[in-house]
Amino acid sequence: MTKVLIIGGSDAGISAALRARECDPTSEIEVVLEDSYPNYSIRGIPYYVSDEVADWRNLAHRTIDDLEATGMRLRLDTVAQAIDIERREVLVTGSDGREARLAYDKLIIGTGAVPIRPAIDGIETLGPADGVHLLHSMADTFALARTLNERKPDRAVIVGAGYIGLEMADALTLRGLSVTQIEQLPEVLPTVDPELGARVHAVLEANGVEVITGTAVSRLSATESGVLVEAVSADGALTWTAELVLVVVGVRPEASLAAEAGATLGAKGAIAVDCQMRTNLPDVYAAGDCVVTRHRLLGEAYVPLGTTAHKQGRIAGENAVGANREFAGSIGTQVVKIFDHVAARTGVRDHEATTAGFDPLTIDSQADDHKAYYPGSRKIHARVTGDRLTGQLLGVQLFGHITTHVAKRIDTAATAIYHGMSVDELNDLDLSYTPPLGSPWDAMQSVAQEWSRSASRLPGRGSRPSRVEPPSPG
Amino acid sequence: MTKVLIIGGSDAGISAALRARECDPTSEIEVVLEDSYPNYSIRGIPYYVSDEVADWRNLAHRTIDDLEATGMRLRLDTVAQAIDIERREVLVTGSDGREARLAYDKLIIGTGAVPIRPAIDGIETLGPADGVHLLHSMADTFALARTLNERKPDRAVIVGAGYIGLEMADALTLRGLSVTQIEQLPEVLPTVDPELGARVHAVLEANGVEVITGTAVSRLSATESGVLVEAVSADGALTWTAELVLVVVGVRPEASLAAEAGATLGAKGAIAVDCQMRTNLPDVYAAGDCVVTRHRLLGEAYVPLGTTAHKQGRIAGENAVGANREFAGSIGTQVVKIFDHVAARTGVRDHEATTAGFDPLTIDSQADDHKAYYPGSRKIHARVTGDRLTGQLLGVQLFGHITTHVAKRIDTAATAIYHGMSVDELNDLDLSYTPPLGSPWDAMQSVAQEWSRSASRLPGRGSRPSRVEPPSPG
Repeated sequence: MTKVLIIGGSDAGISAALRARECDPTSEIEVVLEDSYPNYSIRGIPYYVSDEVADWRNLAHRTIDDLEATGMRLRLDTVAQAIDIERREVLVTGSDGREARLAYDKLIIGTGAVPIRPAIDGIETLGPADGVHLLHSMADTFALARTLNERKPDRAVIVGAGYIGLEMADALTLRGLSVTQIEQLPEVLPTVDPELGARVHAVLEANGVEVITGTAVSRLSATESGVLVEAVSADGALTWTAELVLVVVGVRPEASLAAEAGATLGAKGAIAVDCQMRTNLPDVYAAGDCVVTRHRLLGEAYVPLGTTAHKQGRIAGENAVGANREFAGSIGTQVVKIFDHVAARTGVRDHEATTAGFDPLTIDSQADDHKAYYPGSRKIHARVTGDRLTGQLLGVQLFGHITTHVAKRIDTAATAIYHGMSVDELNDLDLSYTPPLGSPWDAMQSVAQEWSRSASRLPGRGSRPSRVEPPSPG
Repeated sequence: MTKVLIIGGSDAGISAALRARECDPTSEIEVVLEDSYPNYSIRGIPYYVSDEVADWRNLAHRTIDDLEATGMRLRLDTVAQAIDIERREVLVTGSDGREARLAYDKLIIGTGAVPIRPAIDGIETLGPADGVHLLHSMADTFALARTLNERKPDRAVIVGAGYIGLEMADALTLRGLSVTQIEQLPEVLPTVDPELGARVHAVLEANGVEVITGTAVSRLSATESGVLVEAVSADGALTWTAELVLVVVGVRPEASLAAEAGATLGAKGAIAVDCQMRTNLPDVYAAGDCVVTRHRLLGEAYVPLGTTAHKQGRIAGENAVGANREFAGSIGTQVVKIFDHVAARTGVRDHEATTAGFDPLTIDSQADDHKAYYPGSRKIHARVTGDRLTGQLLGVQLFGHITTHVAKRIDTAATAIYHGMSVDELNDLDLSYTPPLGSPWDAMQSVAQEWSRSASRLPGRGSRPSRVEPPSPG
């Protein structure tokens, strides 16, 4: 019987616990978590804030009863203070304030990430009571809900336009607020190229969001009429006043507990792990937003995503009870819904590919989501990145109306990239077709053909492998 | 300069012509076709019949002007009578009735398929003038449209419930007809397992279609009030009278021209070709619904599909002007929309897998299309087939509402099968996730996990590779 102790009750921790119990029903599994909300869907928070999800309890992937029915023990409201590697124990403080030492045979650290608090004057002294919110945990969510329900703000400023920022702009607009979204970088959704970011930008504006890019918020201060937001752009100083300010500029790994126990850290200060999710510490695994992730194209990277946390947690749990399973690696597949449109990406973009030693070519293309003669056809806007030398598919970015199914088309690209396919080989895939839902060459194949045509027009194309190259005339 | 002659102006022929011109702009390309409708979307016919596509001309993937602008020559209304292999010539009869001999350096045969006329008493003497229709060509389409527009039938009987039969039931219902659909086999849509076919059956009935399975139509005869349809089921004789009878029971390859010239035929009498789409005749290629298709799991098979015809035509065209490209093979990916639901399949089913030497296990499972807490979530019904011994993913069948994106989810499965992934390895894929569109484990991964759990409970599981098997307790 293996005693597996897990620190963290979010995606990685609970996935590890479930998998360990599934693989070894004799194992003893104990999960320590800081709050009372194990297995909550963080990505679901915007839809609770928007009122699309009426009851916050529905955000739980599984209820506490469901989890305990598998045989795991949950220690709610319990803070892990220190790991004693020698004794194989974790020192915790329980909900009653008492300390305890929990023994383990195998320890899995899933401490996740914490929201970044950017260097903005005044941010340290303001909080939910002033209408200034960060958003990551259920406690943050309840605080935000209180501000919305009790103060009924008319105006919100969102600092940051990454995917959570965009989802919150959507959510708060749906709640009836006037939203201003401020992004420091030149375009919104910086995880896709600006050409697609500009399309997202247009969707936000079409839905009434004021979008301010290339602008850094410099100062927040409380006034009688709300929070004064001061910002600096190339054009000079700008100010807004809003009853609600939401600061969502990304996350950083929560690795301090592991680091204090001697864990090696890697990219962005995340815990270094091997492919089996083992840290450098004996019998200690780590998984999820607190670890350095293996990226199939980039090598080591920090890619905090729920999908990855689930996979890594599952592997850590399986290995903790005796397996030797390896994490296959992320390729950074992401999707976000912004009002009635969807932006998705997988693989790498030009600058990432160059850093990883590729010689990338990215083209901008578009294709019909289904045969144009059938009603409701719309364009999918695509950016395809491939290696000029080998033709390898490196990345795909898609943008389209929600009816264009780009979220699932990106999965075909992700599966192709996983297998190291060339752009040209996408044409060999036997994909489905019916006129209301596709074309004989799926949109992914049409844009791949466009990439190959562009690549074949490049100087020096003779050096590419013949499978990517049309035959020479003659 | 290569003179490429192509017989057939549908998917395979036109794809070949376009690709040959693209790869070798100096090549001379001539396409001979029997009618005046090159590059028409056969799969679009139901949507013209339904009135969802108002103008039949929109069914053309490209107009004649588009095609000729690429530099190809189209010989419309021209029938290829014989191939003279020795002289490298094709004898044709033009629209004016005159014979001509067309020379070639390379010949590509894309004669396609013809609808099967089943052994039903009376069918040989009845035709469109009586309200009895086959449906494959644009001429068939115009004949059907005339019957619909001029006779304004109230009732239709559709003989056959394959994908075209189902699409026509949908289309004629949309046109306001009362539709009876008769299928000889025990369930509709025999290309999926009866468990999913039954769900399609229910959708048809929910939309007012009378569905009669396990029933063979034995006789058609003209009466004053319409066509009398007589059928035999296990329960006895049945009759209907309808002003319109549509017989859509599948197609057979049109290989007679090639056979008369000495081409070797294979499965179902289709033209045998190698991976480069070469027939056994010198300088003669063939592609599309008239050829035997390489199936990646089954070996040789007859799989007439537009997607495959496009791929094979493209390869034949490329090779005709000097390349050595190989057709990667079909895996029989198909999708059909039936009213507001979609059924899709890829790979093989139990009986096909067994024939091909696998030891298949198929499970029935279901998963949410997206997080259940977000509005509009629906179940995807899935059947997953894998090999018990190796864990290899062999096939996936999906059924769901059109909003569940099963048409694109099947593409992820198709890409996985293309690469010979195991069912378990689906969990390694980095697929996209956002609550309105998916789950942290995509539906495809949830059902894969379900398959693995079923497989691990089988006797003799110790013989399977460890990557598919949970670790032993301990």
